[in-house]
Amino acid sequence: MAESTNMRLRLPLLCIILEVILIILFGALVEYNDDTHAKLWNANKSHSATRDDYENEFYYRYPSFQDVHVMIFVGFGFLMTFLQRYGFSSVGFNFLIAAFSLQWATLMQGFFHGMHHGKIHVGVTSMINADFCTGSVLISFGAVLGKTSPVQLLVMAIFEVTLFAVNEFILLSMLGANDAGGSMTIHTFGAYFGLMVTRVLYRPNLDKSKHRNSSVYHSDLFAMIGTIYLWMFWPSFNSAITNYGDPQHRTALNTYYSLAACTLATFAFSALVNPEGKLDMVHIQNAALAGGVAVGTAGEMMLTPFGSMIVGFLAGTISVLGYKYLTPVLESKLKIQDTCGIHNLHGMPGVLGAVVGAVTSALASPGVYGDGLQRVFADAETGKWNPQSRGGFQAISLAVTLGMALFGGLVTGFILKLPIYGAPPDTHCFEDGLYWEELVPPIWHLPFSNRPESGMTNSSEVYPFFPHKNDSKWVSGSVCSLKACLYGESASL
Amino acid sequence: MAESTNMRLRLPLLCIILEVILIILFGALVEYNDDTHAKLWNANKSHSATRDDYENEFYYRYPSFQDVHVMIFVGFGFLMTFLQRYGFSSVGFNFLIAAFSLQWATLMQGFFHGMHHGKIHVGVTSMINADFCTGSVLISFGAVLGKTSPVQLLVMAIFEVTLFAVNEFILLSMLGANDAGGSMTIHTFGAYFGLMVTRVLYRPNLDKSKHRNSSVYHSDLFAMIGTIYLWMFWPSFNSAITNYGDPQHRTALNTYYSLAACTLATFAFSALVNPEGKLDMVHIQNAALAGGVAVGTAGEMMLTPFGSMIVGFLAGTISVLGYKYLTPVLESKLKIQDTCGIHNLHGMPGVLGAVVGAVTSALASPGVYGDGLQRVFADAETGKWNPQSRGGFQAISLAVTLGMALFGGLVTGFILKLPIYGAPPDTHCFEDGLYWEELVPPIWHLPFSNRPESGMTNSSEVYPFFPHKNDSKWVSGSVCSLKACLYGESASL
Amino acid sequence: MAESTNMRLRLPLLCIILEVILIILFGALVEYNDDTHAKLWNANKSHSATRDDYENEFYYRYPSFQDVHVMIFVGFGFLMTFLQRYGFSSVGFNFLIAAFSLQWATLMQGFFHGMHHGKIHVGVTSMINADFCTGSVLISFGAVLGKTSPVQLLVMAIFEVTLFAVNEFILLSMLGANDAGGSMTIHTFGAYFGLMVTRVLYRPNLDKSKHRNSSVYHSDLFAMIGTIYLWMFWPSFNSAITNYGDPQHRTALNTYYSLAACTLATFAFSALVNPEGKLDMVHIQNAALAGGVAVGTAGEMMLTPFGSMIVGFLAGTISVLGYKYLTPVLESKLKIQDTCGIHNLHGMPGVLGAVVGAVTSALASPGVYGDGLQRVFADAETGKWNPQSRGGFQAISLAVTLGMALFGGLVTGFILKLPIYGAPPDTHCFEDGLYWEELVPPIWHLPFSNRPESGMTNSSEVYPFFPHKNDSKWVSGSVCSLKACLYGESASL
Repeated sequence: MAESTNMRLRLPLLCIILEVILIILFGALVEYNDDTHAKLWNANKSHSATRDDYENEFYYRYPSFQDVHVMIFVGFGFLMTFLQRYGFSSVGFNFLIAAFSLQWATLMQGFFHGMHHGKIHVGVTSMINADFCTGSVLISFGAVLGKTSPVQLLVMAIFEVTLFAVNEFILLSMLGANDAGGSMTIHTFGAYFGLMVTRVLYRPNLDKSKHRNSSVYHSDLFAMIGTIYLWMFWPSFNSAITNYGDPQHRTALNTYYSLAACTLATFAFSALVNPEGKLDMVHIQNAALAGGVAVGTAGEMMLTPFGSMIVGFLAGTISVLGYKYLTPVLESKLKIQDTCGIHNLHGMPGVLGAVVGAVTSALASPGVYGDGLQRVFADAETGKWNPQSRGGFQAISLAVTLGMALFGGLVTGFILKLPIYGAPPDTHCFEDGLYWEELVPPIWHLPFSNRPESGMTNSSEVYPFFPHKNDSKWVSGSVCSLKACLYGESASL
Repeated sequence: MAESTNMRLRLPLLCIILEVILIILFGALVEYNDDTHAKLWNANKSHSATRDDYENEFYYRYPSFQDVHVMIFVGFGFLMTFLQRYGFSSVGFNFLIAAFSLQWATLMQGFFHGMHHGKIHVGVTSMINADFCTGSVLISFGAVLGKTSPVQLLVMAIFEVTLFAVNEFILLSMLGANDAGGSMTIHTFGAYFGLMVTRVLYRPNLDKSKHRNSSVYHSDLFAMIGTIYLWMFWPSFNSAITNYGDPQHRTALNTYYSLAACTLATFAFSALVNPEGKLDMVHIQNAALAGGVAVGTAGEMMLTPFGSMIVGFLAGTISVLGYKYLTPVLESKLKIQDTCGIHNLHGMPGVLGAVVGAVTSALASPGVYGDGLQRVFADAETGKWNPQSRGGFQAISLAVTLGMALFGGLVTGFILKLPIYGAPPDTHCFEDGLYWEELVPPIWHLPFSNRPESGMTNSSEVYPFFPHKNDSKWVSGSVCSLKACLYGESASL
Repeated sequence: MAESTNMRLRLPLLCIILEVILIILFGALVEYNDDTHAKLWNANKSHSATRDDYENEFYYRYPSFQDVHVMIFVGFGFLMTFLQRYGFSSVGFNFLIAAFSLQWATLMQGFFHGMHHGKIHVGVTSMINADFCTGSVLISFGAVLGKTSPVQLLVMAIFEVTLFAVNEFILLSMLGANDAGGSMTIHTFGAYFGLMVTRVLYRPNLDKSKHRNSSVYHSDLFAMIGTIYLWMFWPSFNSAITNYGDPQHRTALNTYYSLAACTLATFAFSALVNPEGKLDMVHIQNAALAGGVAVGTAGEMMLTPFGSMIVGFLAGTISVLGYKYLTPVLESKLKIQDTCGIHNLHGMPGVLGAVVGAVTSALASPGVYGDGLQRVFADAETGKWNPQSRGGFQAISLAVTLGMALFGGLVTGFILKLPIYGAPPDTHCFEDGLYWEELVPPIWHLPFSNRPESGMTNSSEVYPFFPHKNDSKWVSGSVCSLKACLYGESASL
């Protein structure tokens, strides 16, 4: 017998407990940093003749932060609205788990690499980092989209954010890796974590919901809102936390060209792999973004526009081919049901980005970077810098990330498998009706003079949705005829 | 007999007269300020060795302005598209009255607190303030949405903008209140003004249009575009006109955490108040934003992330409970028909924000703020500063705002009640067809090979909309069957 | 017999060849500029005691760039989604040709006015300029929307970008014209180029597709996303590449007021020209933007808000009147089929903007501009400045632009007429189905309990779209009844 999907107690309890814990921990641990604290900022200012309010980091990071913020909430949220009956959940659960994750990430990232005398200092840079970590959770969300309850998603976020912070600490602080745009920390980690979770949660009978696991005309247009915002703001994403000056400027430029080249590759291969030469919205919505993922590590380096375009072109190509040829195999052979195809958008391009980053690091030289070398490679300042070993550490970082993601996803997947979270049954995946209030039928496409002007009081009377008492009048006559209209059965009138 | 709703002369005449008056007043009164005037900016520059073009306020305010601008036009505009048949009017009339209000606000705000030798000086700060004032009008629009003609809305804007400027002058200039994010001046004022207007315009027979006063699937997704943009950019809104440096940075940070906590509260209580534990789109679209409203006053103070999260959590909670339990009572007992529930999103959270601001002001001390005290509380600089009296003035400001809003709404409501504006009849509220050109029926969901490839010349031939001559062919047969399809009546075929 | 529209080889081949050529040319010619190159930026820095990383042009141009970027990809892309069956192509082909054009424009603009010792230097300013050039191509796209294949559009972009760069070089470098917001270089050029192309591609039998050449309810709402983003960010567009300081600030301010006045004119005249006083979505979506076009040249000058509002009001007026009275005449008399009405949004307002720019230049004086004169008019610095001759050169620039655009469009039009690009037949214009993968029918509006839970495997089985084998079951029974539902024919059940 099927587990109840009722969220009445589960979701409120979890949300309230989590938020109360967050508030208590913030109260105990979190403080304004030097740029946001009234006393500290003004005290520092008076000690320095040249420092003024215009030099607050707010003015140099906040526009990037807002672009990243748009990617997290509009970009990821709307990208997943492509499903015909899962728009509310896509944008709504994206909203919920992002709002939770950014708070939890502030604590976890602060704990691992932002403690000052036992306190976590916050400002615009910690906001960007928290949004980055959130992005990783949302990537994993893409793999399990439509097959998980909001309670499962919150539980996944708890574990994934924690492991993200650990992995980020190992890479950036222990291995000294470069990964400003997160090819490894965000994309590779989020993708393989999510793929492992969806593997553990494998549903052999998911084809019972397959007629809902596809798009309709307008849902694809909503998804394009997400795509375009991700595409436009990716230069801001990759450059948001680089060093000031030339690295930030260069990263934005490299990402811009990588994405442009990736887009042409995407259109080319999307038409090429289709027997009739028709473009596939799934490719355009996703593969065109792979160019941003693939320069996430090397974008701040002297990759040149030329190099960026080659990387972008390759990323778009492998992403389209992945959607066409690899995703079906992953499902049929490896039992990995990847709703959004995150392996093609974040997984493979993330690994590509890590490799490109390792190679570009290994090729770096003072001749090319001049005095700017230490602004990209922190250890160049300490004199310990060695391009070959740097490339090696970058490669080790990729291996660590893959290991952490797969192991973390495995454990988290088994935790999410417990039958206590109200997961949807196989027959009702990809269906907003499980978790969202009844919807009323549209009347606007009826001619005005023929609309029912009375006789309806509320939605439940006229539109008996999921488990409801008097379905009978729907079954007889009218709906059958509409069903017949759409699906070619003979009408029962 | 019903008043004509024809806008042919009314709307053009009003728009043209208003714009001509605006142009004349701008010609007589408005001048570039020191940062936008070619002569003044360059003259000031040459007097100062350290000032250069990079210090123009454009570079420190304009990104915030653009975020606010997006909230006004996309945020408010799309938030109101949730109605199934009122999307054109929501986003269109929002556009019209915002474009008018920002011009009129420039004059009114300039008149009350921006005159320099008889001239109003304009620049990016006046643009932000004009957008803020516009926001207040759009909040009131939410209360009367679907029940007013565009002419009524423009008339409402004339009065509301004027009173907004008076109230703002009393609060900021006379009482010396702090309200950078406008918990009082924008949200409380706009909400109670709008609620009083809709009270005066009470329609006892509005249930004749109730089947249109609800959402459909895709209209809710359009509304989420508005929600998410408001949510993302609220940190920019609250911080847009604070002092430079730590106050601006801190305000953005506090708002970010308040909104995140508010979102978890919203999801928790939305599921909790529903018998089946299902989430309600109305709550997610609106209540999740209350956290931004509630830190509008205290956001620039040393509220701490901890305090911000508590305020945000409270705001989300009271907002959801308001939608569930208070709005029906307001309509049935107090005859307040509040289409968008602005009392829950702007009214109560605005009052909460004012109270939080008063308390936080009263608790301010040099020990916490250091030299930064005078950057938040202007009177700290003059030496007249006293935290308790400051808290008192904040509380008085709330009372003044409520009084101005209710009185102004009362007078404006009676002016809008005159039967000369083409208001919609009770039977045709929430209906775009009254004010917008005929719409054609969609053909895209028909299979290509079955679409009518000929025989239609223009929309009026195939889609007889509102008052039209030959409705007969629609009544017989086909439409009845579609109506039957959707509403469960037996088809007449 | 009709030409094949299959894109299987044509589109991939063209995309791949173009991208390979771009990559090779970028490798040979493009270098980081002083602000993006690690070595150069840090070398320059160490020579100057006062220069620091905060002065990198990234921080003063990048927020404007991102606003322009949003206009190009979201603004233009979604503005064109108004067609009921062409949303994928509108936003998709917009994406494709923009991604190509910005790369090609980097090379062409660099070749004509950005060469340094044989290399093209790139940074945020070149990114803005490339986006500007792309905007011109997208304007022309609006004229041929729905009637061209993606291959044709790419070929058009190759020629248009090249000629744009030549015309821009003549205007800005040879004639020394001012045109920061591109009234001439972008809008006038793009409009008349596109109008000439569509004239040459005239389709006498386009009325075979006219039932698809119109909007539906939700497609108009998607288009409003485009409109509002263009409207909001136009101040950033016009000011993106002016000089720093007062010119940039002033341009944004002037554009803001011009657009506000234009919006009131648009609503006024839209209602006035309709017999029933109803507003037309086409006008609101387009004409309200004409105010931004019309201050593209004079916006950086001392036009004053007063002058800006007059120009904006005029622009909105002529644009609405153009849609109502001129567009039908252009089609019937001059055989110009202008899908989006670019003549009304970009053509006439562009010419108006050029004239306003010439007059405002001719009236400029040191008395008004002071030391700021040379920051707006470059030749004022050299001492050769003469306001009357400046006005004359501006007028000559308009004439040159019109000549280049018409000639270029003529040649390009004939090239596009070759029957090798897979252009759609007259019967299938404005139809996504030609170039995009099959779509599945929506099921979400069926009550949950009546949805087909099984029996469908993939889209092609249940939704035989364009050229397909077994259409028969659709013709009989069910679809006829839905068609009957919507079009008032008697049902065949």
